[in-house]
Amino acid sequence: MDFIPRDPNYKQKVSDSFQRQKFMEFIGAELLDVGPGYCEIQLPYQETLSQQHGFFHAGVIGSLADNAAGYAGFSLMKTDASVLTVEFKLNLLAPGKGEFLIAKAHVLKSGKTLTVCRSDVYVVNQGKEKLCAAAQVTLIQLANTQDN
Amino acid sequence: MDFIPRDPNYKQKVSDSFQRQKFMEFIGAELLDVGPGYCEIQLPYQETLSQQHGFFHAGVIGSLADNAAGYAGFSLMKTDASVLTVEFKLNLLAPGKGEFLIAKAHVLKSGKTLTVCRSDVYVVNQGKEKLCAAAQVTLIQLANTQDN
Amino acid sequence: MDFIPRDPNYKQKVSDSFQRQKFMEFIGAELLDVGPGYCEIQLPYQETLSQQHGFFHAGVIGSLADNAAGYAGFSLMKTDASVLTVEFKLNLLAPGKGEFLIAKAHVLKSGKTLTVCRSDVYVVNQGKEKLCAAAQVTLIQLANTQDN
Amino acid sequence: MDFIPRDPNYKQKVSDSFQRQKFMEFIGAELLDVGPGYCEIQLPYQETLSQQHGFFHAGVIGSLADNAAGYAGFSLMKTDASVLTVEFKLNLLAPGKGEFLIAKAHVLKSGKTLTVCRSDVYVVNQGKEKLCAAAQVTLIQLANTQDN
Repeated sequence: MDFIPRDPNYKQKVSDSFQRQKFMEFIGAELLDVGPGYCEIQLPYQETLSQQHGFFHAGVIGSLADNAAGYAGFSLMKTDASVLTVEFKLNLLAPGKGEFLIAKAHVLKSGKTLTVCRSDVYVVNQGKEKLCAAAQVTLIQLANTQDN
Repeated sequence: MDFIPRDPNYKQKVSDSFQRQKFMEFIGAELLDVGPGYCEIQLPYQETLSQQHGFFHAGVIGSLADNAAGYAGFSLMKTDASVLTVEFKLNLLAPGKGEFLIAKAHVLKSGKTLTVCRSDVYVVNQGKEKLCAAAQVTLIQLANTQDN
Repeated sequence: MDFIPRDPNYKQKVSDSFQRQKFMEFIGAELLDVGPGYCEIQLPYQETLSQQHGFFHAGVIGSLADNAAGYAGFSLMKTDASVLTVEFKLNLLAPGKGEFLIAKAHVLKSGKTLTVCRSDVYVVNQGKEKLCAAAQVTLIQLANTQDN
Repeated sequence: MDFIPRDPNYKQKVSDSFQRQKFMEFIGAELLDVGPGYCEIQLPYQETLSQQHGFFHAGVIGSLADNAAGYAGFSLMKTDASVLTVEFKLNLLAPGKGEFLIAKAHVLKSGKTLTVCRSDVYVVNQGKEKLCAAAQVTLIQLANTQDN
């Protein structure tokens, strides 16, 4: 589906908001790509992000899935609006074993108040990309609020 | 509901597994309490855990909810079994604004293969505890596998 | 938690709306109880409601869970507002084998726009009540709309 | 993704199971298409399937989404296995207003024990197809059990 962003500077807006998320910096996540209703976030592996078997922790995978969805949705929102996650649901499909994760999210429905996205998280192991998680995310647009 | 753990050393087993999760150490989470089918995890606030408004990031809240559920379920599993999250769903109910988070999870159903838990995450702000997120989590018991 | 309904005639309001749902009549569901932020719906078994093993169909169980949540939330909404389900998530915990189902839902969070509920569905078999499904449901209040 | 069904007679197997679901017959649902890891179910509108505004009830939409996913997954399972829904999560994206619904589900991951699907439900109004709901569904394969 083709979406038209209400804010022509949506790329900058998303990038600025991403920079303000200290948690993304803390885990080492990078904003890879933003389009109208689309977002990609990448995260290199480090041992600090692991669960008991040494793979990416489900919480880390969920954080990425949620965040990519949040910014896919935010890309379409008004300039003076802020975005919050209402809820997300994540299925873990394969162990998060690899050199890095890439979360790719796209908007399914962009409403006046609510936005619904799907987010796929891939783990890249020795150059091979594998789907390791799939999420569905509901966002709310808060009108007339600053995103900081 | 009263559950009887299949492993009499379940507290030690859960605690050992928790220690192996580098990500929990990285964010500063502490295992507060473990009972049969029950688990509590606490996490003090630090700026590195924040989203763009300075509150606990949804991904952090989700990580705690998932992990508390995972260990609530793991407490009832066999000695030689390992636990994985199949999926989780998290509703964010209030901003994660406060000095620390506490996730409290309990088992709803403990089956031979699958376990289902509910997890509530509270944020404590100036001594007042407030429900900030509610999750439902499905786990799978992997028989004859090591938890490391 | 104690909730105060904004509409003093909330019981009548919920009952009227329930009557307008042809699908509830079609499957034979009855509104058992309504309180502030609470709702109970009952459904006797009939073969037409079954899946391939002859038990209550997951879709029927989900319908009940969703509907009980919807009316638990609606009980707290303004007189001139309408309610819609934003999303629901249902875990099936045991086969729906029995004489009837009872769904019991309560509000976790009642916000200006969104309401979040939990819904438990019990199956009653030879007088014994067993939890057969657990749901988490997000609702939206549509201001200034008629519920018909 | 291309899946290879373990049962060469998977189409017949799915169709037979669908016929045994009295609830699908009761609401008037028809199995439209089955492929390896894919399923489509259609449902014409009738007033008995409506919620309080006269549109398709969310429970009906959820039933279709769950069922299409169940059979998409079942198409890949072994001959002597049975399928059960572990959980499903449904986002409602637009009112179910139209002449009929079509649910289209595909398998994301087909594991030894668990299968995860996505299900999209479209409502067709005066010949125009519109996405009205999106689901994510987890299934379990019960080995050595009859599907009846």
